[in-house]
Amino acid sequence: MNISASPPSGMRDFLPEELARRRHVETVIRRVYETYGFLPVETPSIENLTALLGKYGDEGDQLVFRILHRRDKLSRALEKDKPEEKDLAELGLRYDLTVPLARLVANNRTLPRFFKRYQIQPVWRADRPGKGRFREFIQCDVDITGTASLIAEAEVCGAVAQVFKELGFSEFYFHLNHRQLLKCLITRAGISPAKEALVLVAVDKMDKIGEEGVLKELENRGIEKKLSEDLLTILRRNPDADEIGKIDDLANLFSDLPEAEKPLAELRELYDLLASTPAEGHLKIDAALVRGLGYYTGPIFEIKIPGLNGSLGGGGRYDGLIGMFRGEEIPAVGFAIGFERLVQAMEEKKMFKTLQSGPQLLLCRFEDVESADVLLVAKRLRAGGINVEVYPESPKIGKQLAYAESIHVPVAGIVGSNEVSQETITIKKMATGEQTTLSWEQAAEKIKSWCVIQACDK
Amino acid sequence: MNISASPPSGMRDFLPEELARRRHVETVIRRVYETYGFLPVETPSIENLTALLGKYGDEGDQLVFRILHRRDKLSRALEKDKPEEKDLAELGLRYDLTVPLARLVANNRTLPRFFKRYQIQPVWRADRPGKGRFREFIQCDVDITGTASLIAEAEVCGAVAQVFKELGFSEFYFHLNHRQLLKCLITRAGISPAKEALVLVAVDKMDKIGEEGVLKELENRGIEKKLSEDLLTILRRNPDADEIGKIDDLANLFSDLPEAEKPLAELRELYDLLASTPAEGHLKIDAALVRGLGYYTGPIFEIKIPGLNGSLGGGGRYDGLIGMFRGEEIPAVGFAIGFERLVQAMEEKKMFKTLQSGPQLLLCRFEDVESADVLLVAKRLRAGGINVEVYPESPKIGKQLAYAESIHVPVAGIVGSNEVSQETITIKKMATGEQTTLSWEQAAEKIKSWCVIQACDK
Repeated sequence: MNISASPPSGMRDFLPEELARRRHVETVIRRVYETYGFLPVETPSIENLTALLGKYGDEGDQLVFRILHRRDKLSRALEKDKPEEKDLAELGLRYDLTVPLARLVANNRTLPRFFKRYQIQPVWRADRPGKGRFREFIQCDVDITGTASLIAEAEVCGAVAQVFKELGFSEFYFHLNHRQLLKCLITRAGISPAKEALVLVAVDKMDKIGEEGVLKELENRGIEKKLSEDLLTILRRNPDADEIGKIDDLANLFSDLPEAEKPLAELRELYDLLASTPAEGHLKIDAALVRGLGYYTGPIFEIKIPGLNGSLGGGGRYDGLIGMFRGEEIPAVGFAIGFERLVQAMEEKKMFKTLQSGPQLLLCRFEDVESADVLLVAKRLRAGGINVEVYPESPKIGKQLAYAESIHVPVAGIVGSNEVSQETITIKKMATGEQTTLSWEQAAEKIKSWCVIQACDK
Repeated sequence: MNISASPPSGMRDFLPEELARRRHVETVIRRVYETYGFLPVETPSIENLTALLGKYGDEGDQLVFRILHRRDKLSRALEKDKPEEKDLAELGLRYDLTVPLARLVANNRTLPRFFKRYQIQPVWRADRPGKGRFREFIQCDVDITGTASLIAEAEVCGAVAQVFKELGFSEFYFHLNHRQLLKCLITRAGISPAKEALVLVAVDKMDKIGEEGVLKELENRGIEKKLSEDLLTILRRNPDADEIGKIDDLANLFSDLPEAEKPLAELRELYDLLASTPAEGHLKIDAALVRGLGYYTGPIFEIKIPGLNGSLGGGGRYDGLIGMFRGEEIPAVGFAIGFERLVQAMEEKKMFKTLQSGPQLLLCRFEDVESADVLLVAKRLRAGGINVEVYPESPKIGKQLAYAESIHVPVAGIVGSNEVSQETITIKKMATGEQTTLSWEQAAEKIKSWCVIQACDK
């Protein structure tokens, strides 16, 4: 009876070809983020549960993977009369990259005042696995801490817009809203502020379940039908106005609410600033945008592409989070690109060119050649800059060449005893059958010239 | 009362400067591994416990981090009369990269017959944290599956030797031994084969606890003192012989043991093959080398540097492991570089040059400049290939320049309303105070020329 060889539910193995595409996307993201002056950090996969819980809302807390106590700690917990979940774990897996950043900033008092960091690492959520939904997935975050200036919002959105452009997207939209305007919306619909959180959880699902679904969910959560309908009527206002028109319209709607003034002014200024960044022309004001996570305090944003449900990333301002780890408040804003959905969208739109992965040369040999001599030839070609795989055994040469064919290596090298004594090698371009015998140094150059087309595709 | 901002015990945050050094090492490893024809794969952080347990020996099994069941599964487990560890978890964190590779190969039947993969990912072990010992750490593995040929051993060791050379190490040694010779050693010392595993666990600690310590541990494990001493006497034989001499000596010692013939012949052939790789001149035969993990079946190796206890990596042949996941046996050999110890050794030996990290330009502005205009200048300079940080606020220019000084950015840019209207920028080289006003395009070129020296240091 063998042990199961599949990864656990919601987890994936990545083979070289798929990984080459993922690497390409990651490389573009890193480069653009660095162009925008962001520096990389990394945080541990395992965090204290005290750091994780209470930041993501109740639904989020439920989805944190917990690490089971070990040895004595576990024995003591299990000796209790009725052990509970909280007795069995004090560590959990990273759930996003924002809370770890807040902790890191609170913990490092010598960071620059304006700390611009990017972070590309996996996070884990015990969500129900499904198509395109995984339990381990990569996020690509940019954040700026230490300033209340809207330039920070503009910079993170600008960097993300540039990423999308460099990856080849022409149609993408930043949906913009403001956390404080959501409060005004609740007030305007006549719903009690005490119910804000549960109403927003329902509105947040509009994309997934539609207006009917939202109405039903609001009813389940005990909101009067009339009020729910008022809320949706507001959200439906003026779908055809231009973006400035939508802000004007919200200003009319909230004209008697003094608490709407500041968020409206900020939204207007942000819209204006973003026009000077690569996000220009990719902006939508969206009064229904909620963002699920509990920690946002100011402008919020999501990036979407037409024809794809849900978002490819999002973020916003969270001025209170770092203060939870430190005696003083430090303002902060950030944006997380959802790497998996981004790669998936690019696969579906066939945006990946063929990426060359794998060695340039498979080194084959006749039976009369010593293993040590093949290794020597490989060493010399590698020193000449060629990625070389050595056929590890020595069956008939035809079998070795068939293998070269099967792994799609662009060039096969053939070494017999003559070649060894003359320090030469016969190389064969697999696509055309072209074949020539050269010194090792010349062969390295020839192989490079044969592989140029593949390299350009990179 | 704030939440603790420190990472959990044995876990680390990495700030940009340290990360730049780690990236440098990782980049060299990737490049060399690819030169040797290895392709990248990645596996999930979370594996089924059935895949992890029973591969690393009892001590290893104890160190696997387990993921606590959730919701209903947890409730059901806790309703049991005496719940145990095994009732509370069925998933665990990756403990090494070899077992996941074996599982992946067993699970993917369309891989090339000779699958050469590299993998650079973190692993987790619930070891007692200490100086240089972490609970999350990166391993860098190369493995070849599908062949019994010793060329596979030579290729993985050759690739690792080339990594060490390219990182700047001149003194490093591969310690070589063979799993089957350890059996012969036990037989020769007159110890019962039934005690092999526990004797080897003790011998494996020679580096850490010395001969006295090993003798004591063997005594504790119930080995007769006389036999333990015989064992150590054998291990002490001929310390000054050259490496071939040591193999000859072992051949004498085991001359009446037919089971020693094959491993000795393999060790001899491997030594010979390695002389044609970058490992040439970096080889030591070491009859006391054990390698802790349970799954090795053939040649085993470790890489060490003089003056540093323990190893910077190791590996060997494990022909039985893939078969545990699949109906047929597939031979395999691999080497894992211990990334953390490698980086630490390089830090201690001051082998890192200063690496330029961070933006090339901090963009400052006079109060009369609009935020949107600064963002426009930043966009243009970034398009010109410059990494730009925008000072997000607009205090007195002196304060902004002082900040530029404090973050060690090589160039400060200054924009006033004149510059904006003329589409120019004043740039200042921070190291010398040199200052000039140029068009945006010219400025980008000038900044590059000012940053060349830093770039070369990369």
